[in-house]
Amino acid sequence: MRWDELAFDDCPIARTLSVIGDRWSALILRDALRGVTRFDGFQARLGCSREMVSRRLTNLVESGVLERKAYQARPERFDYLPTDKARALGHVLMMMAQWGDAWLPTPTSKPLGRRHKACGHTFRPTLVCSECLIPLEPGSIDYFDPTAARST
Amino acid sequence: MRWDELAFDDCPIARTLSVIGDRWSALILRDALRGVTRFDGFQARLGCSREMVSRRLTNLVESGVLERKAYQARPERFDYLPTDKARALGHVLMMMAQWGDAWLPTPTSKPLGRRHKACGHTFRPTLVCSECLIPLEPGSIDYFDPTAARST
Repeated sequence: MRWDELAFDDCPIARTLSVIGDRWSALILRDALRGVTRFDGFQARLGCSREMVSRRLTNLVESGVLERKAYQARPERFDYLPTDKARALGHVLMMMAQWGDAWLPTPTSKPLGRRHKACGHTFRPTLVCSECLIPLEPGSIDYFDPTAARST
Repeated sequence: MRWDELAFDDCPIARTLSVIGDRWSALILRDALRGVTRFDGFQARLGCSREMVSRRLTNLVESGVLERKAYQARPERFDYLPTDKARALGHVLMMMAQWGDAWLPTPTSKPLGRRHKACGHTFRPTLVCSECLIPLEPGSIDYFDPTAARST
């Protein structure tokens, strides 16, 4: 099986894009993972309309990426909290940050510094093979159907 | 410096989303990295209007992610080829695929199998610290400004 033989619906990238495949949803997720929890906080950071924020928050809750919890009864007000499903998306955003730093520098931008709490070192997030720990290069992977008897 | 102190334009995630922050652009990029090069090929796989494909291809060429090369003069026809900048985005798509497989299964979907050519093993793409090779967990990272004398 080649990757390009996958039908659209069978493609896990397409499924992921159904959740974060618009810029505003991805930025709301980014901010939620940085600790923003309230409607006004999201809106202030994104600088877009209330209706736009409202629609995206609703979608993200329906997707199970954010959880809505009331923090006030009258009037009713909610926190929007990231779930484990959202935290798992952190790796996607980290790769996006890395690419933006490497390939889209701006005159005022400076690459993020990162320190790994576990070892104390400054580091680069690095995508490796789980078995040999060698960094993955473009073209270094064969895809196959794990449920089929043989693969190409 | 905290991540949430970054201005919008200073955010490398926001910059990346300016290139692949709409679903169709990301899917065109996906297909380009799988070997699709021609307009009709992209359109057939995405099943959307010619105008939509045309606009996205133009944007991706302007962003330096695809390179346009004529393969025929009369009438003029072009291949759209991924650049190194596009191949570097492969890691973003790989993390998306992994998340979609893990968190958005469908009744007909089966997770992709991957074999690493370098070591021959089936594997999972794994995001690790470049210094200690430990997989990165949510909350395991401190961010700082590498150009500042001290960090928080």
